[in-house]
Amino acid sequence: MAKKSIEILDTTLRDGAQAASVSFTLRDKVKVALLLDGLGVDYIEGGWPGSNPKDYEFFREIKNYHLKNSKIAAFGSTRRKDVKPDKDSSLSSILEADVEVAVLFGKTWTLHVKEILRTTLEDNLAIIADSIQFLRDHGLEVIFDAEHFYQGFKEDPEYALQVVKVAGDAGARVVTLADTNGGTLPHEILEITKYVHERSKVKLGVHMHNDSGTAVANSLMGVVGGARHVQGTINGIGERTGNADLVQIIPSLALKMGYNVLKESDGLRKLRNVSASVYELSGLHPNPFQPYVGDNAFTHKAGVHADAVMKNTRAYEHIDPSLIGNARKVVISELAGTSNLVNYLERIGLKVEKKEEKLKHALKLIKELESRGYSFDLAPESALLIVLRELGIYEKFIDLKYWKVINENGLALAVVKVNSRVEAAEGSGPVHAVDIALRRCLIKDFPELERVKLTDYRVILPGVIKNTESVVRVTIEFNDGEKNWRTEGVSTSVIEASIMALVDGLDYYLQVNKKLKPLIAND
Amino acid sequence: MAKKSIEILDTTLRDGAQAASVSFTLRDKVKVALLLDGLGVDYIEGGWPGSNPKDYEFFREIKNYHLKNSKIAAFGSTRRKDVKPDKDSSLSSILEADVEVAVLFGKTWTLHVKEILRTTLEDNLAIIADSIQFLRDHGLEVIFDAEHFYQGFKEDPEYALQVVKVAGDAGARVVTLADTNGGTLPHEILEITKYVHERSKVKLGVHMHNDSGTAVANSLMGVVGGARHVQGTINGIGERTGNADLVQIIPSLALKMGYNVLKESDGLRKLRNVSASVYELSGLHPNPFQPYVGDNAFTHKAGVHADAVMKNTRAYEHIDPSLIGNARKVVISELAGTSNLVNYLERIGLKVEKKEEKLKHALKLIKELESRGYSFDLAPESALLIVLRELGIYEKFIDLKYWKVINENGLALAVVKVNSRVEAAEGSGPVHAVDIALRRCLIKDFPELERVKLTDYRVILPGVIKNTESVVRVTIEFNDGEKNWRTEGVSTSVIEASIMALVDGLDYYLQVNKKLKPLIAND
Repeated sequence: MAKKSIEILDTTLRDGAQAASVSFTLRDKVKVALLLDGLGVDYIEGGWPGSNPKDYEFFREIKNYHLKNSKIAAFGSTRRKDVKPDKDSSLSSILEADVEVAVLFGKTWTLHVKEILRTTLEDNLAIIADSIQFLRDHGLEVIFDAEHFYQGFKEDPEYALQVVKVAGDAGARVVTLADTNGGTLPHEILEITKYVHERSKVKLGVHMHNDSGTAVANSLMGVVGGARHVQGTINGIGERTGNADLVQIIPSLALKMGYNVLKESDGLRKLRNVSASVYELSGLHPNPFQPYVGDNAFTHKAGVHADAVMKNTRAYEHIDPSLIGNARKVVISELAGTSNLVNYLERIGLKVEKKEEKLKHALKLIKELESRGYSFDLAPESALLIVLRELGIYEKFIDLKYWKVINENGLALAVVKVNSRVEAAEGSGPVHAVDIALRRCLIKDFPELERVKLTDYRVILPGVIKNTESVVRVTIEFNDGEKNWRTEGVSTSVIEASIMALVDGLDYYLQVNKKLKPLIAND
Repeated sequence: MAKKSIEILDTTLRDGAQAASVSFTLRDKVKVALLLDGLGVDYIEGGWPGSNPKDYEFFREIKNYHLKNSKIAAFGSTRRKDVKPDKDSSLSSILEADVEVAVLFGKTWTLHVKEILRTTLEDNLAIIADSIQFLRDHGLEVIFDAEHFYQGFKEDPEYALQVVKVAGDAGARVVTLADTNGGTLPHEILEITKYVHERSKVKLGVHMHNDSGTAVANSLMGVVGGARHVQGTINGIGERTGNADLVQIIPSLALKMGYNVLKESDGLRKLRNVSASVYELSGLHPNPFQPYVGDNAFTHKAGVHADAVMKNTRAYEHIDPSLIGNARKVVISELAGTSNLVNYLERIGLKVEKKEEKLKHALKLIKELESRGYSFDLAPESALLIVLRELGIYEKFIDLKYWKVINENGLALAVVKVNSRVEAAEGSGPVHAVDIALRRCLIKDFPELERVKLTDYRVILPGVIKNTESVVRVTIEFNDGEKNWRTEGVSTSVIEASIMALVDGLDYYLQVNKKLKPLIAND
């Protein structure tokens, strides 16, 4: 018998983007969408074109990519009262987004109909029905989000139920019951969802917020109550305390409740990686205690537990961590560390024995640098350069002998001496000026560097004590039209740290192409 | 009719202390215990003397304090097999701790009885019974923690139920059902707890771990199922993904489920403060998204929400934030309307009409700057400076007329001209050098700037096209010993953007203290 399926709608780019201190650029949004498609979610809610005109850019841009699994949806509200659907700006903004799916939200709570919308209960039903019909007539699939559903239900269950029926009859493929203020508790969600499910024909969804700390549980209880469509965000990012965290919901649905979730067969195994990538793109620190995917989720401190885990993994591990791309950590052994490095090296075609002494020495160096502010997780290619040096398969292509930067109102100049050449350059900022000068020194000997572009640049203060004297960590992402790589620099000077990361980025490219490729080819 | 009560047992000092990267000193432990007593929890589990001899120090030290509300409990395991209770080291270590209450844990899961304990099911029941009796005979109140209860129940419900009965009959005042590996889902907790409750006479407790992301919900479902004693930790700290977070559970029990919780009448209002203090003592960063107490828990960002919140707080706030010592916040961003600005201004003591034209103009400016790379959500105080300028209540204290930075291997120099002063400085990096030179120019006129420290610094490329020519966005956080504020700068030069954010940070402090405070005082 085929397993039942649960549809996943991800709203990281819409509801998630409303999180305090989160602000996605267009490029970030595209990256998130591609990650979600790789995971295999059913729907990607890309934005709210009616409220935020910048969201159009995303809907336009994403058309340039072929998505394998996910449909793109635009969010918007039902039409205003006293306005015909074809004259309504909210509905037309959804049409303008030119997507396959509309997520339309409307009122369910009588209090809101009367006080916010200031219309009659009957008129609100008409608004819902003809807004859905209008979008259906224009060929869109419609998911109807019943705003404040659970609050509304508690005050007037009959009306809330009527909203579900009207939306379903008007052609909504899914009616989503939303706990908009996040105040409903899991036993209430179970009871109410079950009640509605038993009295409705349309497919039900749930959309939970985490204000009571139970958004993950509430989503699961919604499913127990009969919902077959779950909305949430990666890492639970969202306004206030956030939305339901799909990273925590999906594995429980798939591994514990026996549902088919995610259209990509190895989607589950990508969860940890997708979670980490979205943390980075949203500028939030990963939560090491996050269930399923956090760094500590399967970490056992020495003692009774660690010992028991060895005897019987089921005792202290609820699932096999590898199923969601995580790993057990008991003690950070040097052996466990070197296997990581061996893995990295394999990816660029080098086979090295895990017990190799030089590798252990490289690991020691890396750990020491990490204690001084580096984080090679974010910049594996800078770590790789250290390993190559230790293994003796490194050639010094770039010898930076001197650099100087002068920056003042409207002027950024750099002078660098690399190998035997001295070059100066002006740039739009000091890092740009250094970048140009560096490349001028190198381009004659290494014309292939023309292909190397910088695609991201981030700076943080990694230390505990933070002031203008602290060390900064600069992370740079590069791309040569085929691959991405990332390098790092750490210094008390943001310019110096940037130069270190820049040089590493160019150096990595040269090591791979001029040193390793011939070496591997000759093997 | 008197409301029913739920007992709270806090295990921050025992199970919480097993969290990765948490390590309490004796002094920290005493501080945590005093905070918990002030909150009014029923029990404070202070440690596991049998496993960690250092815990004795705490039990000795805490006797020097008069606790108003809480009883101190020591944790330990049932006796070993083939050892009489009075010869057993685990039981005697509990007696040595010289406390009123013992929390005794024992096996419930048949697999563990057979494979870890390596004894018969009958012998395990005898071990539980006479361990409890022994402690009761020595005058201790006993809370029995049934380890792996839910896992055990799923495999052998009859035996699990028998363990509860035997423990109750032997004199345990509470039998706690523990989800030791955190793998059980809320609907299972509800069902199983209810089943056990209907068949037991003893008071039931629950002890949840967060591996499935549902520890808070599981604790509440345990209560719905009949439990009247809840164990957890402040902020949910604990091994792996942590324990059930009491900070999230207590308000739901008290405010939503109608139970009496906490023996201190204003305990609830202390929750946010206790949470913050425990974060500090445990060396963990506060989670701004934490339900109920987090900085963002009542933060409103989207324009439509912020506006609706003002109209009807119930719409987007599940409780009154002041009940748990938190407060409403509205942030400024491109999603915001003027009501966000009005609200923000109110917090610094300024009353402005929402329809004020100058405010609308300020919002337009803010949105335009956001389209060029600013994100005022991350730096509301830079936005505030714009608003103050538009409203005409701004005084130019800092007029940066010129700046120049020279940075080369090992040298960072800055020259700035502010107002009529020129100063130069050397720093550990260019931003540090500018910071010193700026302050040298300002300190004579504004000695209060001495108190202003930089506490965070971040740089990203906010634009779509990312290369070394792109604009960078610098965000800086400041603190004056009392408050935090954040400002931003955007420029193609990382140095210039840093200078803009630095100047804004100092400027904000001066506007608030030298311009606004006198203005509001004169009102």
